[in-house]
Amino acid sequence: MTTRAFRLDELAERFELTLRGDPAVRIEGVATLAQADASRLGFLANPRYRSQLAETRAGAIVLREAEADGWHGASLIAKDPYVAFARIAALFESTPAAATGVHASAVVAPGARVAAGASVGPCCVIEDGAEIEDGAVLGPHCVVGPRCRVGAQSRLVARVTLVQDVVLGHRVLIHPGAVLGADGFGLAFERGDGEPGHWIKVPQLGGVRVGDDCEIGANTTIDRGALGDTVLEEDVRLDNQIQIGHNVTIGAHTALAGCAAVAGSARIGRYCLIGGGAGILGHLSLADRVTVTAMSLVTHSIREAGEYSSGTPIQPNRQWRRNAARFKHLDELARRVDAAEKETKS
Amino acid sequence: MTTRAFRLDELAERFELTLRGDPAVRIEGVATLAQADASRLGFLANPRYRSQLAETRAGAIVLREAEADGWHGASLIAKDPYVAFARIAALFESTPAAATGVHASAVVAPGARVAAGASVGPCCVIEDGAEIEDGAVLGPHCVVGPRCRVGAQSRLVARVTLVQDVVLGHRVLIHPGAVLGADGFGLAFERGDGEPGHWIKVPQLGGVRVGDDCEIGANTTIDRGALGDTVLEEDVRLDNQIQIGHNVTIGAHTALAGCAAVAGSARIGRYCLIGGGAGILGHLSLADRVTVTAMSLVTHSIREAGEYSSGTPIQPNRQWRRNAARFKHLDELARRVDAAEKETKS
Amino acid sequence: MTTRAFRLDELAERFELTLRGDPAVRIEGVATLAQADASRLGFLANPRYRSQLAETRAGAIVLREAEADGWHGASLIAKDPYVAFARIAALFESTPAAATGVHASAVVAPGARVAAGASVGPCCVIEDGAEIEDGAVLGPHCVVGPRCRVGAQSRLVARVTLVQDVVLGHRVLIHPGAVLGADGFGLAFERGDGEPGHWIKVPQLGGVRVGDDCEIGANTTIDRGALGDTVLEEDVRLDNQIQIGHNVTIGAHTALAGCAAVAGSARIGRYCLIGGGAGILGHLSLADRVTVTAMSLVTHSIREAGEYSSGTPIQPNRQWRRNAARFKHLDELARRVDAAEKETKS
Repeated sequence: MTTRAFRLDELAERFELTLRGDPAVRIEGVATLAQADASRLGFLANPRYRSQLAETRAGAIVLREAEADGWHGASLIAKDPYVAFARIAALFESTPAAATGVHASAVVAPGARVAAGASVGPCCVIEDGAEIEDGAVLGPHCVVGPRCRVGAQSRLVARVTLVQDVVLGHRVLIHPGAVLGADGFGLAFERGDGEPGHWIKVPQLGGVRVGDDCEIGANTTIDRGALGDTVLEEDVRLDNQIQIGHNVTIGAHTALAGCAAVAGSARIGRYCLIGGGAGILGHLSLADRVTVTAMSLVTHSIREAGEYSSGTPIQPNRQWRRNAARFKHLDELARRVDAAEKETKS
Repeated sequence: MTTRAFRLDELAERFELTLRGDPAVRIEGVATLAQADASRLGFLANPRYRSQLAETRAGAIVLREAEADGWHGASLIAKDPYVAFARIAALFESTPAAATGVHASAVVAPGARVAAGASVGPCCVIEDGAEIEDGAVLGPHCVVGPRCRVGAQSRLVARVTLVQDVVLGHRVLIHPGAVLGADGFGLAFERGDGEPGHWIKVPQLGGVRVGDDCEIGANTTIDRGALGDTVLEEDVRLDNQIQIGHNVTIGAHTALAGCAAVAGSARIGRYCLIGGGAGILGHLSLADRVTVTAMSLVTHSIREAGEYSSGTPIQPNRQWRRNAARFKHLDELARRVDAAEKETKS
Repeated sequence: MTTRAFRLDELAERFELTLRGDPAVRIEGVATLAQADASRLGFLANPRYRSQLAETRAGAIVLREAEADGWHGASLIAKDPYVAFARIAALFESTPAAATGVHASAVVAPGARVAAGASVGPCCVIEDGAEIEDGAVLGPHCVVGPRCRVGAQSRLVARVTLVQDVVLGHRVLIHPGAVLGADGFGLAFERGDGEPGHWIKVPQLGGVRVGDDCEIGANTTIDRGALGDTVLEEDVRLDNQIQIGHNVTIGAHTALAGCAAVAGSARIGRYCLIGGGAGILGHLSLADRVTVTAMSLVTHSIREAGEYSSGTPIQPNRQWRRNAARFKHLDELARRVDAAEKETKS
């Protein structure tokens, strides 16, 4: 890793932050308060870590004005220290610039278009009718199928599969193992003449459209539409191992945490936050600014912004067993309480 | 995409449907009622979309006789409009026919057998002792390990891994990122002489058998058996990101929705429907025609057909918190109700 | 598959087990009691299968002394029959030894180091700054990125991606589709001047460290740390489709079953058992020897060893619906019981 270094006043000016203390402090990287040494910039965004100010050896800290008195050393004062820290940390990222051009081991079909300023890594397969725009970077082992477009400055880190009819906007970032454009789960059950029957596949004919600045996590899957497209608007953020069914629409600036799943034709609003492992059934709508907590299951549309949950709290197994056994008869219990009240009143 | 077109009477005859209205309507594709124009065939299967009949501009519609009066235009009358639509839509699929033969970039071991009528795509790896039957199609980046067989007319869309001892029937369809035949999770805990101890891997020696006409979704995993095989009977349908443990058996015509998981040695019957994110513990049996709703956890065998559920309903977080807090003391609450009843009766 | 065979007394001596019955019984493989024939060694570890002793045709059986009277044939007596069986079964594994050297189709960057005794399979991509130690085996389609190290005797079965800064210990086993070292889900929300705003990516700068003897399942994902590393201590066992967020630490000898998920910065102790589909929220700590049952959600730190659960039991849907509807008003129900008690007492 090469060493880049910045003076603290340089950072203050670049990111329009207020400097306190020695302007000449030399910053060579970023770190947590616990791990920082004198060459590192730390940050305090979450108040639960405030007590670490007393012991950190950071060279400087990004923090809110209100926290500044708790720290005797050099600092950069920010309205939102986490945002400021994110911008500064980006200076120290070490992703090497990808060489433009197509690696010798890649297989590019004659009917594919790869811009001169794009980078196509080892063992990539670009099929007929695919298009890779300028500044796009494909790491090793990516597959880009027919009628797919990888927009300018987008990056497929490694081993990403765009099956077909997948159109990515600009600056889209996709992590390894993600699959976009696989068939949705469309089945019709055909009863037999006398009897039971079997499944018939419903052809999946649509595509996937991904807006600018989206990020898609490792091993996440986004199915193509059955008819029409599956759509992510701009700045949608998907963590790892998420499943998005056919014809789902996800509004701009919405984020889903790992292992969440959205069934077919659901519509999720803008600025929503979907917790890890949460499930959203098909054909539902979620309003803008809906938060769903981890591992909750949404079984009906939600029309109002707010936070929603399902499930029961974690408990020692022995207590949980007793309570869970009672849940099986909760309706009966409620009826008994109803009856007792009536009796008392009569 | 090439344009195929059919006259409506041609479709009626081909699929044995009753035609109403203009037999010369020209159909160039299929669409939802909302998106169809005069060149498209729409369908009405789910009554919740009936109101769209008033506004659709579809050239013709597939629907039930009972719905036909709600629509003034041309139609195809079907007992099961969704099945009829699925069959018609298949005419408009655009998957290009794969060229037979082995792509120059594929690596085929000398001891592998690839039928002359099979297609092996770019960067595929076919190992010694593998067999690819006639009419099978392997898209880019598939790996087929020792003692695996890809049955006639099966299709591995792209980047599918069959680790070893995986035998696929005919017409099996597998989507990108699926892994069949990885080791099951077999561990024995060996206590140390004085103390704690460590894990020992239990060798996984079995295989995976997949029946005819199965479909397996993107990033789904099916482990090899520990001893004996993991088995999917014919026409089993697995959505994306499903986990099937070692030695599981899934009966014919059963379908599992996305992110469901089945632990080792469970036996699922025929014609079952397992909802998205549902879990089935190991060593259990499910009868035929069992339905498990989304995100439910099956902790004991189910001997009777029917629908089964667990979990609690989604609620605004503030209400949910209050109820969830009470769940932690539900057994105590029930005891208090018991006691009150006794007192009242005495 | 080649046939290996062992005399029963040979096995007894090799694994220090007590032999009963004919020492000359010839064992050619292992099997379940139900499937074994006279050439196979069966085992009885789980008492629920004890009744199979009456009917098995196994050539010999590994079992506890206490069970030995139930079986008239030859046997190997073991304190822990499952452990003994695991060790014996390993004799019959058929994974062919991988040829050392780099396959002609692999792409190894000039700045990568591959030990002479390592094996690199077809279509692997080893990038600059990666290191493959002696005795390591990479199956087809693995990608090893910058600053990654694959420790001696480790095995990446096929199509494993180590994105960057991933350091594996010795004898680590990783199954297909696993992704280690992808970016964690780090986002800062930047409010706009007038209004809403958008996400900013928080650079992910850390790595992943995996201890000796860990096993990582198919399609499992382990994110790189944001600052500092994500850590698996030695002998950690992860099943398939598990998600491990950035900066998580998992203690030695802990095992997670399929589809479990651990959010960022959580710390899990040693000798823990995390059930399938269970979720652990971020920034929590779990003590040593904590067991979490399947599909439970851990929302706060757990300081004491023991078993923990959440959720409700599976029921026929009709009953479940009635109980679930009552759950929505459980707090109110409890208040009514409180009130009734007060009234009675007054």
